[in-house]
Amino acid sequence: MTRILFYLEDYSHDIWRDSLLKVAPGIDFRSYPDWGTPDDGPAYAFVWEPEPGLIASYPNIRAVFSLGAGVDHLTRDPNLPPEVPIIRMGDDGLKEGMAEFVAMSVLMHHRGIPSMITKQKNKDWGRFFAKAAKDVRVGILGFGALGRVAAEALTPFGYQVAAWSRTPKNPVEDVTLHHGSDRLDDFLANTDILVGLLPSTPETQGLLDKERLSLLPEGASIINAGRGTLIDLDALKAHMESGHIASATLDVFPEEPLPSNHPLWGLDNLIITPHIAAITRPDTAAEYVVRNIARIEQGDAPENLLDANRGY
Amino acid sequence: MTRILFYLEDYSHDIWRDSLLKVAPGIDFRSYPDWGTPDDGPAYAFVWEPEPGLIASYPNIRAVFSLGAGVDHLTRDPNLPPEVPIIRMGDDGLKEGMAEFVAMSVLMHHRGIPSMITKQKNKDWGRFFAKAAKDVRVGILGFGALGRVAAEALTPFGYQVAAWSRTPKNPVEDVTLHHGSDRLDDFLANTDILVGLLPSTPETQGLLDKERLSLLPEGASIINAGRGTLIDLDALKAHMESGHIASATLDVFPEEPLPSNHPLWGLDNLIITPHIAAITRPDTAAEYVVRNIARIEQGDAPENLLDANRGY
Repeated sequence: MTRILFYLEDYSHDIWRDSLLKVAPGIDFRSYPDWGTPDDGPAYAFVWEPEPGLIASYPNIRAVFSLGAGVDHLTRDPNLPPEVPIIRMGDDGLKEGMAEFVAMSVLMHHRGIPSMITKQKNKDWGRFFAKAAKDVRVGILGFGALGRVAAEALTPFGYQVAAWSRTPKNPVEDVTLHHGSDRLDDFLANTDILVGLLPSTPETQGLLDKERLSLLPEGASIINAGRGTLIDLDALKAHMESGHIASATLDVFPEEPLPSNHPLWGLDNLIITPHIAAITRPDTAAEYVVRNIARIEQGDAPENLLDANRGY
Repeated sequence: MTRILFYLEDYSHDIWRDSLLKVAPGIDFRSYPDWGTPDDGPAYAFVWEPEPGLIASYPNIRAVFSLGAGVDHLTRDPNLPPEVPIIRMGDDGLKEGMAEFVAMSVLMHHRGIPSMITKQKNKDWGRFFAKAAKDVRVGILGFGALGRVAAEALTPFGYQVAAWSRTPKNPVEDVTLHHGSDRLDDFLANTDILVGLLPSTPETQGLLDKERLSLLPEGASIINAGRGTLIDLDALKAHMESGHIASATLDVFPEEPLPSNHPLWGLDNLIITPHIAAITRPDTAAEYVVRNIARIEQGDAPENLLDANRGY
């Protein structure tokens, strides 16, 4: 019987248990702290932000499934056993959610909604005449599975869509691809609406600092739906106050929830969303986990296996 | 030489002159009040909210082009000569703008953005877990050319899209069509996100009154991007304060700009946009006007000719 060790703080585990049992009725679902003992036999961990050291204390864990697309909540654990496979979430609900969030946010910045929300506070009927979509350059920073579905949701509206990634990627229709660090500055200089979808790695932390943000054209907008470590928030605030960056939507932050005394809360033309761009859906995630446990048990590689050298 | 009599308050006419001359260099563009005399020979009016009686005072006008999709700014003129053809705007820029605005607004209400904006004012990190798009019923009220492009922008996201119109309409893939007044109540009762795209006619004025709004399911959202007379705003406010209607986006109002003392400005979970859902774009509108003047001069019917009996 397949044993799943589940960990998630603050939320009920019932929907996750029910969703897994619906897909695979024979599963032995163990909700933390009721994980049994480390010599109970093979188990799979399915976790979000587990306590440091917890995974190491259960040597019977054969693989760890992350509840989200990010895995930095696991890799920052200094005691994480290096030999245990880590599998990033890649369920269809996550992709649908990101396609929705990116399309919505790009449309909002293109059509001037953040400035209208600011004006509404002052009962100010200020009209904004948007450019045609064909004249708006959207740049997606990071082009993994979520970047691809985001691009595919944008092209039907007629935007000029480009993407930048560290390494070369397979083409997507109507999307201009760039890769490598020597192409980054030029990519930023030709982006009106920037969409951050990079993972958190030593190379991406603080990548959008004051200088790189200044490369964006005057009046550009930024959406960050990847990881909160990408952007230097003080630099972003300064660029927004000067008007160089016209508007932004941030879904992720270095510290979550964003502390209530943080100066970003009241910044004009900034939309703060509470890390909901792409939320793992229990129904589709359960199918994903059960499918990938079967692959592991058949000796096949699971989908979205973490490459420790890349960091994602 | 084709003479165009142009009228638009508060905005520069230069871009309209330039756009028309680019499409048809021989045009004689007359900017109000420099319209010449009523016996100058045949002319076409291209106007937005002209003074009452102005069209009647130029009997040389062979047809009137509205600068927007709505024509109530013309038909409310008691002196409008009944025999002069009125042509609604139907340029591609208008359709693109409406597709963008409706897709954006539906995504915003589906993903809970209006409530997050309200929470942001209070520095409140409250998470909202949206339903899957396939479980969200979007209902488009009014299914003319703009309703069709709105529906086509929504179906790729996987929403359940339905539409209601007064008279039967041609089918659109993946859209369930309803028509006739006896189907309206049932349509409303099965709509989670309602998109108003009806013209202003005696039948549609105040159509969404307190009782019809109560037919929407608990927690429904409303987007109005048609005409401001559709909704009883006092009734909407009461339904939002009770929570029966969770959120709304209003782009149009009975009086525009919305007066600064209007109680809607400060209402939680309400997004106010200043009548920008679909703005006529000078470049595509110029092509539309020139193309339809040619049709009229060849004795063909123009596109989007006002049917005075229907009122749109």
